[in-house]
Amino acid sequence: MKAAVWHGQRDVRVEEVPDPPSPPAGQVKVEIAACGICGTDLHEYLGGPVYIPVDTPHPLTGVKAPVMTGHEAAGRVVEVGPGVERVKIGDRVAMCPIIGCLQCTWCKSGLMGLCPKSAYLGTSWHYGAFAGYVNVYDFMCYPLPPEVPDELGALVEPFAATVRAIGQANLKPGETVAIVGAGPIGLMALQAAIIAGAGQTVVFEPSAGRQQLARQCGATATVDPLNRDPVQAIRDLTDGAGADVVMECAGHASTGVLAGRVARRKGRVVIMGVYERPAPIDYTDLVFGEKTVLGSMGGYGVFEQAIGMIAEGKFHGELLITGRIPLTEIVSGGLEALVKNKDAHAKILVSPA
Amino acid sequence: MKAAVWHGQRDVRVEEVPDPPSPPAGQVKVEIAACGICGTDLHEYLGGPVYIPVDTPHPLTGVKAPVMTGHEAAGRVVEVGPGVERVKIGDRVAMCPIIGCLQCTWCKSGLMGLCPKSAYLGTSWHYGAFAGYVNVYDFMCYPLPPEVPDELGALVEPFAATVRAIGQANLKPGETVAIVGAGPIGLMALQAAIIAGAGQTVVFEPSAGRQQLARQCGATATVDPLNRDPVQAIRDLTDGAGADVVMECAGHASTGVLAGRVARRKGRVVIMGVYERPAPIDYTDLVFGEKTVLGSMGGYGVFEQAIGMIAEGKFHGELLITGRIPLTEIVSGGLEALVKNKDAHAKILVSPA
Repeated sequence: MKAAVWHGQRDVRVEEVPDPPSPPAGQVKVEIAACGICGTDLHEYLGGPVYIPVDTPHPLTGVKAPVMTGHEAAGRVVEVGPGVERVKIGDRVAMCPIIGCLQCTWCKSGLMGLCPKSAYLGTSWHYGAFAGYVNVYDFMCYPLPPEVPDELGALVEPFAATVRAIGQANLKPGETVAIVGAGPIGLMALQAAIIAGAGQTVVFEPSAGRQQLARQCGATATVDPLNRDPVQAIRDLTDGAGADVVMECAGHASTGVLAGRVARRKGRVVIMGVYERPAPIDYTDLVFGEKTVLGSMGGYGVFEQAIGMIAEGKFHGELLITGRIPLTEIVSGGLEALVKNKDAHAKILVSPA
Repeated sequence: MKAAVWHGQRDVRVEEVPDPPSPPAGQVKVEIAACGICGTDLHEYLGGPVYIPVDTPHPLTGVKAPVMTGHEAAGRVVEVGPGVERVKIGDRVAMCPIIGCLQCTWCKSGLMGLCPKSAYLGTSWHYGAFAGYVNVYDFMCYPLPPEVPDELGALVEPFAATVRAIGQANLKPGETVAIVGAGPIGLMALQAAIIAGAGQTVVFEPSAGRQQLARQCGATATVDPLNRDPVQAIRDLTDGAGADVVMECAGHASTGVLAGRVARRKGRVVIMGVYERPAPIDYTDLVFGEKTVLGSMGGYGVFEQAIGMIAEGKFHGELLITGRIPLTEIVSGGLEALVKNKDAHAKILVSPA
């Protein structure tokens, strides 16, 4: 099969590799239908290695670079290993990329994302989903109902991450939600907030194209923070109060401070953006407003809910798919296209054929 | 009477000013017994104005610089204005410095510290407690029982702030607490944590003198973060986990990142340090550990509890009082002494006589 293999910064190669063997106990072989390019794929491509082990093999899996990449995927189970009962041949599934040790407190208490040894499909696993097939553990697979086509199945993973993040914020119906950054995660967090009953939804985003996409996704207001004071803007929209919940989905050096400041007193700020290094926060604003900032990691635990929202037609993932490319074009038509023309794109899906 | 008046950076003058008049409705006149020098007094002295209004009069009180300073005070009620029922002449009281508008949602829901118009005794009020007398609202006064002498009464305000902060962290008995910075607030937060049933208490502090004070206050371990990797140190002490709760009481450019990193997965970090400008945080660490960072503002709402802890002998405030000076020496023996020889001092108390 062909697979996209990360060798180093700006060095991702589409190579011929052996198909996965028959899956061992507890694993299944999935034929990939579609796999989205994620912000972390871009971070690994431009500034990596971020999570890819290079010098030392991963403690759980023994994997190190070069590694097959891709993790936002849907496909069809074509073979099951011994002992697998969770899925069967022919099931269409979305995959959660997190692979915990299954031994530690976190894994045993349903918080596999916090497992200190956790590995990830596409960065520290033997396979990646920018490929024809993957072998994965059965617990990573979530069956898709007929109402969820493969392309939306490939969006389950990032969408579930935003559903989980909105849950961490303990969003209550009618509350005002600010979204900082209208990339794919921001636009999914926006929709997750609307589905959870948010009142006003205010998106901070400099790109006009992405602002428009945010309005199509249901944002009640969009603000260009480079041309308008974001704190004044949110005050004007909320009778001086600020946002009850803020979703930081940009990960730029300046957006953490912005996210904190547009939150109301006692407001909650959830960090989803990927930061390659520490960045500023306005601690004094946190103190005087008794604001809370919290991190949310992945979508494990809410895959079924996310799939249900998609099946019910509440999530408009189709608005976010701005490109469809074959695996052979992943660099020029995918990674480089996102670097060069980010504003024109939200989610690009890669098919192995 | 004499009072310490802030005129500008490094310009605090002890001046002769008129005694407060008979208190108006809702206010009382308090004869000051002792007033502690707070970190914010030092910030105003060295880097101010931080909270002192200079150009525009305070929206609630109309006060602007020059202002009388001092807010960590205890004293005796010597006169009461019309309508005052909360305290009576002769009562010994500690004072909460926060003056809310009493009209907004926050004031009416018991969160006066979040009032957008709030003023403070000693920075934006007509009086400050580095003086012979102050007029203050009756709601700012909390009677002291005989078991709490004046000097410990002057510590009620900062200690209450740490009691509130430990409450915000939702500390559960037996949890490990890390304290970043062993200045007066750090040492009080340490004691508040111990009173709340903390298990291990680990203090990160470079000064040997302050480390020793922390051990006298009950710290189970002290770590010099300049000479030992703080993350490795907390792991060694907690079987690899990290601290359940971290109290950031330093406010240095590097300590926010440190505080986040020494927290365990799902740990809570409470910010109490005073930052003059935004400073770094490790957002990615927050995300991967699903950690929470929150601000805690002042001690309102828990003054009675703090006074009760002192009355019961649980709080060893006497360990923290490293200097006693008359008002006339507040600059040389107080503010400048803290600047020049910070490690030798924790709390310096100023008496008006």
